Amino acid sequence: MTAAVTAAMLVIGDEILSGRTKDKNIGYVADYLGQLGIDLREARIVADVEEHIVAALNALRARYDYVFTSGGIGPTHDDITADAVAKAFGVPIDEDPRAIALLLQRHKPEDLNPARRRMARIPQGADLVANPVSKAPGFWIGNVIVMAGVPAVMQAMLDDVAPKLRTGVRMTVETIDSGGLPEGAYAAALGAVAARWPELAIGSYPSYQDGGFRNQIVLRGRAPEAVAQAGEAVRAALAQLRH
Amino acid sequence: MTAAVTAAMLVIGDEILSGRTKDKNIGYVADYLGQLGIDLREARIVADVEEHIVAALNALRARYDYVFTSGGIGPTHDDITADAVAKAFGVPIDEDPRAIALLLQRHKPEDLNPARRRMARIPQGADLVANPVSKAPGFWIGNVIVMAGVPAVMQAMLDDVAPKLRTGVRMTVETIDSGGLPEGAYAAALGAVAARWPELAIGSYPSYQDGGFRNQIVLRGRAPEAVAQAGEAVRAALAQLRH
Repeated sequence: MTAAVTAAMLVIGDEILSGRTKDKNIGYVADYLGQLGIDLREARIVADVEEHIVAALNALRARYDYVFTSGGIGPTHDDITADAVAKAFGVPIDEDPRAIALLLQRHKPEDLNPARRRMARIPQGADLVANPVSKAPGFWIGNVIVMAGVPAVMQAMLDDVAPKLRTGVRMTVETIDSGGLPEGAYAAALGAVAARWPELAIGSYPSYQDGGFRNQIVLRGRAPEAVAQAGEAVRAALAQLRH
Repeated sequence: MTAAVTAAMLVIGDEILSGRTKDKNIGYVADYLGQLGIDLREARIVADVEEHIVAALNALRARYDYVFTSGGIGPTHDDITADAVAKAFGVPIDEDPRAIALLLQRHKPEDLNPARRRMARIPQGADLVANPVSKAPGFWIGNVIVMAGVPAVMQAMLDDVAPKLRTGVRMTVETIDSGGLPEGAYAAALGAVAARWPELAIGSYPSYQDGGFRNQIVLRGRAPEAVAQAGEAVRAALAQLRH
């Protein structure tokens, strides 16, 4: 069995923590990495404060195979991600000629003012990540992939890096509706299944709509036959309980 | 000037990290706390793994006035939040008679099986948080408020604790559309305003729709007159640039 490939997501931006903008990037990255067989293990949202970004980045990059960041790479004063990443890695940061060349695909030379040139500041040793939407690139340094916060741009950047990522075995997922049974009625049986297949991640997820709960059981694992067997055991237990 | 009241949010659950469930609680809590004048400063999402929950909780509760958690307090084997919180605080955990009494409002005594009784496990010294939706309570220990993951239930629990929270001065927020100006055109002027009012949080937020960017500038601060003055300065600068 191959080792899992793991990742964390770091969302950078006051606008998420103030509630102004509702984050859509974590859920997107979670789905996307899942398709690649990469496990998203943790996510954090921090404000536009350099020491917070540096601390989170250093904690996460030591712990996971990849760290994906979103936000804070634009031309305005509150866009401080690139400098924070350079600081976290302890490397210099300067205008990157490759990034300047990309910006010149969008802006006339006379429009490439100091603010826009800030978007070409790339930590030393980083590779660029293409931005087909608006040219200003993201970058990849060590195991950290730095992307824009605007979802359309972030998604395009993810497409650019995906082929270069080390990927794992994709999870097999089975979802079973409890068929009206409340969680408390099947919890013991489900716990027994989970104990029998400890290599699987088995969860029970209630949702609430129109005054009632609906419960779904989700089985996830890298061995399809184990997921199928455990799913069969869950369905049999539910049938017996509903009987 | 009164000190800010700060908070962090800890979302607990494999289902968020796998992408199965898209988190709605962080954005809701951000808005809600903002209305109370409490600053959400950080958010984390961790898996249903005890040591990860304990580590995140201990990091966050040391750093912020309040920590709000959502997820992991149901009756199934993957609901391990209460035990993790007890471990983080180093206190015993056991069935709480107050919680049992609440569960008996929903379940007949003969239906209160061991799985459902798990929902009455409350760390020693905690206060209960009411759950008007489905009775099983959350709890409040130290500066940590433990809530359900189902949004409708979490929101009701937040309503229960809100009157008891120490609150701050609500932020005054002003949002100014750039009126078609790209970020790179106004970044220098905006940076100058931000430097002149360092006590404000001033951000520039692009969104992308129908092939184009729309930019909004947001000014946030606890002194309404400073927000108004800085807003005036931003509008004047934009008008001049559009001229």
